[in-house]
Amino acid sequence: MRQTVKIKFMKQLKFDENGLIPAIIQDYRDGTVLMMAWMNRKSLEKSVRTGKTCFWSRSRKKLWVKGEKSGNCQFVREIRFDCDSDALLFKVKQAGGAACHKGYRSCFFNSFNLKKGSSGIIGKKVFNPEKIYAVRKG
Amino acid sequence: MRQTVKIKFMKQLKFDENGLIPAIIQDYRDGTVLMMAWMNRKSLEKSVRTGKTCFWSRSRKKLWVKGEKSGNCQFVREIRFDCDSDALLFKVKQAGGAACHKGYRSCFFNSFNLKKGSSGIIGKKVFNPEKIYAVRKG
Repeated sequence: MRQTVKIKFMKQLKFDENGLIPAIIQDYRDGTVLMMAWMNRKSLEKSVRTGKTCFWSRSRKKLWVKGEKSGNCQFVREIRFDCDSDALLFKVKQAGGAACHKGYRSCFFNSFNLKKGSSGIIGKKVFNPEKIYAVRKG
Repeated sequence: MRQTVKIKFMKQLKFDENGLIPAIIQDYRDGTVLMMAWMNRKSLEKSVRTGKTCFWSRSRKKLWVKGEKSGNCQFVREIRFDCDSDALLFKVKQAGGAACHKGYRSCFFNSFNLKKGSSGIIGKKVFNPEKIYAVRKG
């Protein structure tokens, strides 16, 4: 039964010409949008199977399990897809308190406020990325 | 001063090979992710200038101001961009209570629950789309 639901869910989705679909990652408790990344069929299947988010890296051209280096993995609570079946929304429990490889809780830490006409960084670093990622840059 | 902030903000962003950047739209009050759509430079500039979201329709190949037919426009409160400068997060005030052209508050009304192994529609229709969009389908 569960397997049937999974297969039906996968078949409904539309992947783009590169075989990818955007995935928005949101904290399941307070609704913070943590990041956006890309999935192909394999990474989505792996996310569903393991219960942890797995993406397709367009720059490195390979699957990456979120948190495999930092330990800050994301436990999937729910997956939603939109009315056009071409975008995913994952509700997750974020381990380690931070999703961004630059040390912030959310990757969306740059803010542009239309009303105030100001721009700047929102939030504080949760961890020091230099201690976590010894080699990786960017 | 405000103009300088706007130009600096625009220049930081990375648009893809089609000149597009994904934009996540989130309710500024309760954090509900309402939809995801695409922007090019023109639609982003228009969103910033008018304070209402404007997107690029990939299917119709033209700009569309959200709510121009339904009246359910989105008033921009804040724009964030991510650590890679290739995704946008808009915090908006949603007019009419619904973002989705199918009548739901959020376009992400299809749910797949990993824990329960179930799939289905979340939420109720806020409006009847047939009354709003007389011709448009899908």
